[in-house]
Amino acid sequence: MIRIGILGVGTVGTAVAQILAANADIIEARAGKRIVATHGVVQNLARDRGVDLILSDNPADVVDNPGIDIVVELMGGVEEPYALVKRALKNGKAVVTANKALLAYHRYELQALAGDLPLMYEASVAGGIPVIGALRTGLAANHIESIRGIMNGTSNYMLTKMIAEGVSYDAVLREAQELGYAEADPTFDVGGFDAAHKLLILASIAYGIDAKPEDILIEGIEHITPTDVEFASEFGYAIKLLGIAKRNEDGVELRVHPAMVSQREMIAKVDGVMNAVSVVGDRVGETMFYGPGAGGDATASAVIADIIEIVRGNTGPMLGYKKGLESGLKLLPAEAIVSQYYLKLKVIDRPGVLAAVTSTLGEASISIASMLQKPSRIKDHVRLLFTTHACEEKALRAAIAQLKTLEVVDEAITMMRIEG
Amino acid sequence: MIRIGILGVGTVGTAVAQILAANADIIEARAGKRIVATHGVVQNLARDRGVDLILSDNPADVVDNPGIDIVVELMGGVEEPYALVKRALKNGKAVVTANKALLAYHRYELQALAGDLPLMYEASVAGGIPVIGALRTGLAANHIESIRGIMNGTSNYMLTKMIAEGVSYDAVLREAQELGYAEADPTFDVGGFDAAHKLLILASIAYGIDAKPEDILIEGIEHITPTDVEFASEFGYAIKLLGIAKRNEDGVELRVHPAMVSQREMIAKVDGVMNAVSVVGDRVGETMFYGPGAGGDATASAVIADIIEIVRGNTGPMLGYKKGLESGLKLLPAEAIVSQYYLKLKVIDRPGVLAAVTSTLGEASISIASMLQKPSRIKDHVRLLFTTHACEEKALRAAIAQLKTLEVVDEAITMMRIEG
Repeated sequence: MIRIGILGVGTVGTAVAQILAANADIIEARAGKRIVATHGVVQNLARDRGVDLILSDNPADVVDNPGIDIVVELMGGVEEPYALVKRALKNGKAVVTANKALLAYHRYELQALAGDLPLMYEASVAGGIPVIGALRTGLAANHIESIRGIMNGTSNYMLTKMIAEGVSYDAVLREAQELGYAEADPTFDVGGFDAAHKLLILASIAYGIDAKPEDILIEGIEHITPTDVEFASEFGYAIKLLGIAKRNEDGVELRVHPAMVSQREMIAKVDGVMNAVSVVGDRVGETMFYGPGAGGDATASAVIADIIEIVRGNTGPMLGYKKGLESGLKLLPAEAIVSQYYLKLKVIDRPGVLAAVTSTLGEASISIASMLQKPSRIKDHVRLLFTTHACEEKALRAAIAQLKTLEVVDEAITMMRIEG
Repeated sequence: MIRIGILGVGTVGTAVAQILAANADIIEARAGKRIVATHGVVQNLARDRGVDLILSDNPADVVDNPGIDIVVELMGGVEEPYALVKRALKNGKAVVTANKALLAYHRYELQALAGDLPLMYEASVAGGIPVIGALRTGLAANHIESIRGIMNGTSNYMLTKMIAEGVSYDAVLREAQELGYAEADPTFDVGGFDAAHKLLILASIAYGIDAKPEDILIEGIEHITPTDVEFASEFGYAIKLLGIAKRNEDGVELRVHPAMVSQREMIAKVDGVMNAVSVVGDRVGETMFYGPGAGGDATASAVIADIIEIVRGNTGPMLGYKKGLESGLKLLPAEAIVSQYYLKLKVIDRPGVLAAVTSTLGEASISIASMLQKPSRIKDHVRLLFTTHACEEKALRAAIAQLKTLEVVDEAITMMRIEG
């Protein structure tokens, strides 16, 4: 029998204990051994969790307990779980964690500490979708060309609503908060930080890149307006908050931002709270992994998948590599991103303005792919909406700075990247 | 160093050898050891394969070769590869196969023969998509409620064209044959047999069901007409050739047939030659795995993923279970299928006919969900198109037999199942 101790018995921890009991038949048949959650560590011992665990408010009762074989870390936070996971590994225990923040900051230290001990984390990215397993194993023959993930259900729910119903960001945020899809302070979700943690984990497996959240470009969905949505729909795009990892000759781009994606692409068809990760390998081409990115049962499904792999004796290298990293790859700075862009300008409605704007873009070597003029709510103004051909972000930023110096152009220029 | 011998150096075998060489850097980094394809067995030694292998026309040079660690079987056929895989296992070699027909007939014998030796087969279902890995590992905490797969690219390409362009089955088949997407004799693909082999493999991992192709319902796409396509589009359905495994209280339904699927479902959005498998687990909910289902490089990507797992020392039980099967599950007969249905009748255009048809359905306890009357090309006839609420297939078949006895109804009644 394999004994599991759970650090943090909240929604996911409770689901792990419940599923291990309720699906014990099939889990034992698949793992080859009986697996039982026996101990749990909580902050508040007074609250009933409705599960059959020996509860304690002292983590040592799990991480130092010789009767526990596998420690499941579901506490959240960074430094406290880091210390406890280290202690569990030092005590020779296998560890399963769903903690994306812990991994976004300490995955390489943890890989070194774990050595040959299993440290698994399928649940840390995209909840119940086994995308870590796919990257570590199923696609391991490939150089990964790109990863594009919808990895935050809150943002995707909000963007789906904004597109389907033309409602404003503020209105849909209120609705999402009422439905419990968004937190009172939604910054972590809508600002792209949650997706960034997940992207960093995937990028390690794909490329061996050791970046931290503060090293990469992170933009949220807060400034998207119905005008942007309307333009995207007219030109055949959906708007998605994407975590993107992309390899080119010079290195790897890592970035999280809202993007316009052709409605023909599978990832553009992923609606509501669902998550999906598209992975392009140099040999396999495009694959996509779709499913629920959150929820107690879905996340617990991934935690238990890791437990079963550990019990079977399977692990493989934590971050996908047994030795070394993919050779010569470095993280590219945000200015080196190459993308197509969407630009929204408010300009004074006067002869020669369009010529001034387009010649400014031309001088900055920005080539226009499509253009749309729309009336503005402000008197004597119009909106100019452009898409560009692919260019370096550095050139585009310079062009925007130049446009802002034009007397006829309002300073509030909106830019959004276009993916594929 | 790990040495690979390949039985059958065609498109996939050549790709396996080429990728092992071209991506050797990343494969070694991920597997922890150098992996080299050294030997190949072919029928025609005269043809140049463009790969650096010691070629032979005698399989013994691979399966009995003490220098070979892993045998990759890519021959096709059933009994000849079965004999060679058995011999390789007896010689203590690990085996990777992409041969769905071999597994459709002999997977349980092979599991028993393999014992603790790895026998892996990711490439046998849905080409480059790591769906076997997902079922064996990522979703292992779940009782599987259903699997619905688009697992034949030829059929999906043809159905996509028929829907997008309103062209007939015969016209699109000719086009698919010219493009090389369909064989001169397309029966294996369009008749559902290829998908059935793959479904049986997935159903073993999900349920431990030991069925053969001849035990299950298999229907092809040959009889779908532009009228069916038009009706489907009007009512918000796509038409897909699905392999379906579904658990209910009494057992497991296994079936391959064209089905109408709501356009809102992710699997309905999978177009062209692409494959996708939707898996619903009792805890995780719906997940979907999308990608290329065929092609040398994509299939080789899956073969090499298996090789890397073997080299890492990971395998797990071949068919997902370390002991026993899911308890008490049996294969349900086709008559016990429960589904919604689409019915297309040609009837004489005369008062009272609709009443006669609907009362016949009512007497058979078939409840109508929607109805559409369309003109027929035949004088004095009209087409009646129905969808039903869910009922047992047995009841529907009885109702169709009864309808055929009505003087006013043409004998050629079309039925299609509606999924979701």
